[in-house]
Amino acid sequence: MHKVIFDTDPGVDDAMALLFLHHHAEIDLLGITTVFGNATIETTTRNALFLKREWKIDAPVAQGAGETFIPHRITHEPPKFIHGDDGLGNIGVPDVIDLPVDPRPAHHFIVETVRANPGEVTLVAVGRMTNLANALKEDPEIVSLVRQVVIMGGAFDVNGNVTPAAEANIHGDPEAADVVFTASWPVVVVGLDVTTKTVMTRSQLAEIRDAGGKRAELLFDLSQFYIKFYETRVPDGMVVHDSCACAYVVRPDLFRTRTGSMRVVCGGLADGQTIQKPDDMGFGPSDWDNLPSQRACVDIDAEGVLKLIHDTITSVRAE
Amino acid sequence: MHKVIFDTDPGVDDAMALLFLHHHAEIDLLGITTVFGNATIETTTRNALFLKREWKIDAPVAQGAGETFIPHRITHEPPKFIHGDDGLGNIGVPDVIDLPVDPRPAHHFIVETVRANPGEVTLVAVGRMTNLANALKEDPEIVSLVRQVVIMGGAFDVNGNVTPAAEANIHGDPEAADVVFTASWPVVVVGLDVTTKTVMTRSQLAEIRDAGGKRAELLFDLSQFYIKFYETRVPDGMVVHDSCACAYVVRPDLFRTRTGSMRVVCGGLADGQTIQKPDDMGFGPSDWDNLPSQRACVDIDAEGVLKLIHDTITSVRAE
Repeated sequence: MHKVIFDTDPGVDDAMALLFLHHHAEIDLLGITTVFGNATIETTTRNALFLKREWKIDAPVAQGAGETFIPHRITHEPPKFIHGDDGLGNIGVPDVIDLPVDPRPAHHFIVETVRANPGEVTLVAVGRMTNLANALKEDPEIVSLVRQVVIMGGAFDVNGNVTPAAEANIHGDPEAADVVFTASWPVVVVGLDVTTKTVMTRSQLAEIRDAGGKRAELLFDLSQFYIKFYETRVPDGMVVHDSCACAYVVRPDLFRTRTGSMRVVCGGLADGQTIQKPDDMGFGPSDWDNLPSQRACVDIDAEGVLKLIHDTITSVRAE
Repeated sequence: MHKVIFDTDPGVDDAMALLFLHHHAEIDLLGITTVFGNATIETTTRNALFLKREWKIDAPVAQGAGETFIPHRITHEPPKFIHGDDGLGNIGVPDVIDLPVDPRPAHHFIVETVRANPGEVTLVAVGRMTNLANALKEDPEIVSLVRQVVIMGGAFDVNGNVTPAAEANIHGDPEAADVVFTASWPVVVVGLDVTTKTVMTRSQLAEIRDAGGKRAELLFDLSQFYIKFYETRVPDGMVVHDSCACAYVVRPDLFRTRTGSMRVVCGGLADGQTIQKPDDMGFGPSDWDNLPSQRACVDIDAEGVLKLIHDTITSVRAE
């Protein structure tokens, strides 16, 4: 079993990833921590509560950061043209969800849950890295207590998606990501190099709806706005970024990874760009030296991952 | 015919590229301009004169920049471990070559030669971009008078070679390269994405020596130190970076290119990194907007280029 804390900014593809984690037999979802990004922190937290209620998820929701790791950094508007005004595809999420939020801020929740389960917790972070960086700042010793950190974010050998250099999750808080990548815990980065290869077609999503019952119907509905956004970007369907990171947790064999220390450009033209120094390449002295070697995903069995998502989400038929 | 000014910092692979240009039937070599990089400006100029004398090249040599485009930028030591103390593989180049240097500084030579041959000159630049940036500063109107600019430098979808982010020619003078890439003249960048695929084996170099006479013998001899450097980097032989740019001039069909505006990161972690915004990808507003679309080489027929180099250099048998 994989004990998972899911750090997320729902977010349409976040919702699919959450349902995947909730339904997968080998995942024990210990908590959902929210972060700003695809929408404001108030909205992403509300959305997490909404999905928790609709999908009958036991795990608590803890609200996280609403601003970057470094105070007063330039921030960017939520991408309402991708995830809708409500962050879930404009399906009409109620303003208030009558469910309690965990009293702890997300980074406290992370630290306490990791300390209560030493060596067992996998952090799956699919938004900005702010909560994880705040947790490291709060309690640096967790680096030796976390099992692994699996991130959706970054772009190594391909262009970004917000700028030619940078991917959205990392661009949204570069300093936080640099702290997370250079900490002495095992990090796996599932970035655009592999997620953009993982396109779920409309018919594949419809098959999940037809086979997955009421939960899958909601997933289908909230994904329609996001699919519209992708109409000019992929031939048919949508990129399921965040689910790729969840797939890695249970099926790392579906990915090819490259090891090497990683840094994030903070400021300037390439603000938010992720750059790895592959372990098997020689360079002169550089700012990548003497840092932990982490894993970047460089290839993916996209069909295998899409099948895994289908099979997992439709494995539990909730009415 | 292609009228070419060769801007170079010889340099071992520069020497091969020079011999290629000298021997190719469709190249009219108008001049050789030198720049610091693989060695100091005094050494690269001396080496250009040495090769001019040994290979009986008519084209004049004009000495160029010995420091970066922006004054007082951090500079880097010449890579003597790659090109030798003398910049030509420690073959024992005489300290002084008794040949005249063109009285004009390289950037004046470039401006005047371009103005004398409007629309006809191809600038092939295989060192730092300093002379080209200085020429643009001196006379911005040359952008509409140059036929095209073909550069060896940069790394787009692959790591650099000086740092994980940056390739040596661009890293050595990032501001100059950014000026050159963003100017309104047609630029083709032949970077590590394709040059590192172009490895000439020891036996291929020996075949050139055996078939190419005395000039090729010198080429063989001065390449041995450089091959030693590559022993831990490629299975056998050496990467012929600069000759790839020359091959592009006469055989662009051996390359696959991608169009899009290009910038160079100046300062910080990724100092000297080249980043293209592909024309067919959408992004939010960015620092790549409203700049000329240039060509980055993204694939190469390496066997075809190696054969072209062999056939060209051995086409003239000089005793």
